[in-house]
Amino acid sequence: MNMESPITESPEVLVARLAKAGREAQRGLALLPDARKAEALRAVAVALREDEGPILEANARDVAAGEAKGLTDALLDRLRLDPKRLAGIADAVEQVAALPDPVGQVIDQSERPNGLKLSRVRIPIGLIGIIYESRPNVTADAAALCLRSGNAVLLRGGSEALHSNRAIHAAFARGLESVGVPADAVQLAPTQDRALVGAMLTAAGLIDMIVPRGGKSLVARVQADARVPVLAHLDGICHTYVHSSADAAMARALALNAKMRRTGICGAMETLLIDAQFPDAVALAGDLLDAGCELRGDARAQALDPRIVTATEEDWDTEYLDAVLAVAVVDGLDAAIEHIARHSSHHTDAIVTGDHAAAERFLAEVDSAIVMVNASSQFADGGEFGLGAEIGIATGRLHARGPVALEGLTTYKWQVRGTGQVRP
Amino acid sequence: MNMESPITESPEVLVARLAKAGREAQRGLALLPDARKAEALRAVAVALREDEGPILEANARDVAAGEAKGLTDALLDRLRLDPKRLAGIADAVEQVAALPDPVGQVIDQSERPNGLKLSRVRIPIGLIGIIYESRPNVTADAAALCLRSGNAVLLRGGSEALHSNRAIHAAFARGLESVGVPADAVQLAPTQDRALVGAMLTAAGLIDMIVPRGGKSLVARVQADARVPVLAHLDGICHTYVHSSADAAMARALALNAKMRRTGICGAMETLLIDAQFPDAVALAGDLLDAGCELRGDARAQALDPRIVTATEEDWDTEYLDAVLAVAVVDGLDAAIEHIARHSSHHTDAIVTGDHAAAERFLAEVDSAIVMVNASSQFADGGEFGLGAEIGIATGRLHARGPVALEGLTTYKWQVRGTGQVRP
Repeated sequence: MNMESPITESPEVLVARLAKAGREAQRGLALLPDARKAEALRAVAVALREDEGPILEANARDVAAGEAKGLTDALLDRLRLDPKRLAGIADAVEQVAALPDPVGQVIDQSERPNGLKLSRVRIPIGLIGIIYESRPNVTADAAALCLRSGNAVLLRGGSEALHSNRAIHAAFARGLESVGVPADAVQLAPTQDRALVGAMLTAAGLIDMIVPRGGKSLVARVQADARVPVLAHLDGICHTYVHSSADAAMARALALNAKMRRTGICGAMETLLIDAQFPDAVALAGDLLDAGCELRGDARAQALDPRIVTATEEDWDTEYLDAVLAVAVVDGLDAAIEHIARHSSHHTDAIVTGDHAAAERFLAEVDSAIVMVNASSQFADGGEFGLGAEIGIATGRLHARGPVALEGLTTYKWQVRGTGQVRP
Repeated sequence: MNMESPITESPEVLVARLAKAGREAQRGLALLPDARKAEALRAVAVALREDEGPILEANARDVAAGEAKGLTDALLDRLRLDPKRLAGIADAVEQVAALPDPVGQVIDQSERPNGLKLSRVRIPIGLIGIIYESRPNVTADAAALCLRSGNAVLLRGGSEALHSNRAIHAAFARGLESVGVPADAVQLAPTQDRALVGAMLTAAGLIDMIVPRGGKSLVARVQADARVPVLAHLDGICHTYVHSSADAAMARALALNAKMRRTGICGAMETLLIDAQFPDAVALAGDLLDAGCELRGDARAQALDPRIVTATEEDWDTEYLDAVLAVAVVDGLDAAIEHIARHSSHHTDAIVTGDHAAAERFLAEVDSAIVMVNASSQFADGGEFGLGAEIGIATGRLHARGPVALEGLTTYKWQVRGTGQVRP
């Protein structure tokens, strides 16, 4: 599509047209052998490196406009590219090229008494819509994962990154075309009209799945308005429960890591539950306070250290994404599981324990996308799970959950092979 | 819940209350061992048999009211129970009890270089809403499948079957309670207020999935209004393509069975595509005409037999569910695949061919939930697929597709077992 042509269609007509082109390209893509899709992504990585000049130039325009608009330093940092970051983007595309292709995988097969042979075979989902904010790397990351799994993608990035996204997309498209993959497999929305987002969210039957990539307000809007299935998580209110039998050194190390390694990620611990029988609670809380974390506790937690301030009811349901932690003292495993059932966002919850039975009960009874024993909740990540990448972490209950990479971007069909069977 | 108490809450408040009770019951249900869930369903089958008197009496009231209201014979037939049908319902519950339990199944596992052990384990979805019409057997069938897979269920049946549903539900609840399973795991909506359906459809976060069971208008309404994920199919516009290399006898037998065995089911063939090079096209069409099927053809199909009437554009997109068939003559495999891509409802599409390469291309390129080679599309059924039962057939692209039984009523969580790993 020519990016510079004025948009005169309604957002719905535009989305329908883009979706039609994307779906058409996807039909071809779905049938490409593994090696061709990998080759296409390697060509994209080459094109991204070749286009370093124009991409960084486009990005400088976005950054300058952002500075003039008074964007915060945090936003400007997300927006800014430099040679190292751009090389990282190209490398990531190459890494996705090297991942195993889930398409064509046989999930299971059986033969019926009448001789019919059934197989369930992985296929791409179809057309994925990505709605994102100011990070231009999403343009390449998300598109690479969708393409690797045979999906077409319709990208709608934030207006702050408009020129960067167009330059990255142009390199992506050129890479695809250089190996004969239709460029419409990866389309960038040609307008920043906000109504386009609404039209994407309601394009059921045209767009098969939406992945929002950005802050909580973006995800909340997408989840509220979408008629298309959404793969996302809204909150990461992750708990770590330190059981009475926990090894003290392990519990202290895990709590510190789960909270303080990076406070701004969705897998960061937001609530620490300390068993009333855990003997080293004072040191556990002290470590976090000494590391600069604000602790907000219930009355029994406050008794552990005078620096712990009073938690309100709201604290148990808050994702701080900061050096702040809610702390409660609980009476045993059941009370911990009950607290988590009431307050967890079902992202990642962990227990630290030396008791095998307690560990297995926690794993079975805590109903979250990821449940952990004796590990830091900060491991909640596609790369750490060995998926090679991730399109996002999902807390919905259907389709894919937890870190989602290529397999979560596929669905399946039933293939039935007969020899003339009629149904009696 | 007391069914006779007047409903004074708003539909939204009522759904929230029912959902809370259902979710609470589900937490217990999710942890029951396989044997207990099977035992509960066997107790339900016993209770259904014990309650033959009250259930048939309640059903007689519904049938009498339906006759007074002037319901069609077809609707009255769906509504009517007799000792044999009721015994069939109880038997079906027992058969579901005997199915293998998918909950707890390990989908896959891996160990990371840092020693973290990851497993993906099947868990119930949660609370399933079933919205259905006049068939009282759905009350027991759907509830049994949900319960077998550890899900709670909220049933909302048609008002025509109100007394039958209440009587079946009472037996179901008594069976569950007799073995200590909370009766709230299977709730029947206590009001026929139509606004309740709307409140169920928008209860995102309270109800995890909706399964509509009924005619096209019900499914269309549910799909249009739902914010909760829906497992369903709207249309079964199923194609059979007879390739040039098809065995003539096989093609004739399959076409006749796919169309005429039962014309009213979703897997019935609605469009026959005949390859221009298939030598026995006249006999193929003649068999169907002789069997009493109306054929609506394009110009080339009409040339096969003077009894074939003219198809309009609409015929290619119509699910007749009757002894009517659209017939087109196509030039080769690509044209057949193209026709199917344009007109299929992505339910079940089949090829009849003697050519292995054509079969494999059809299986790969036709993008439907079920694709078949040399078999009747009427096999599209959970029982025929060896699933033991089915909650429905889904044509959506996410989660479960094609015939859906117990596995499609589950999702998974990630379990991570560590020994104190912190993330670097």
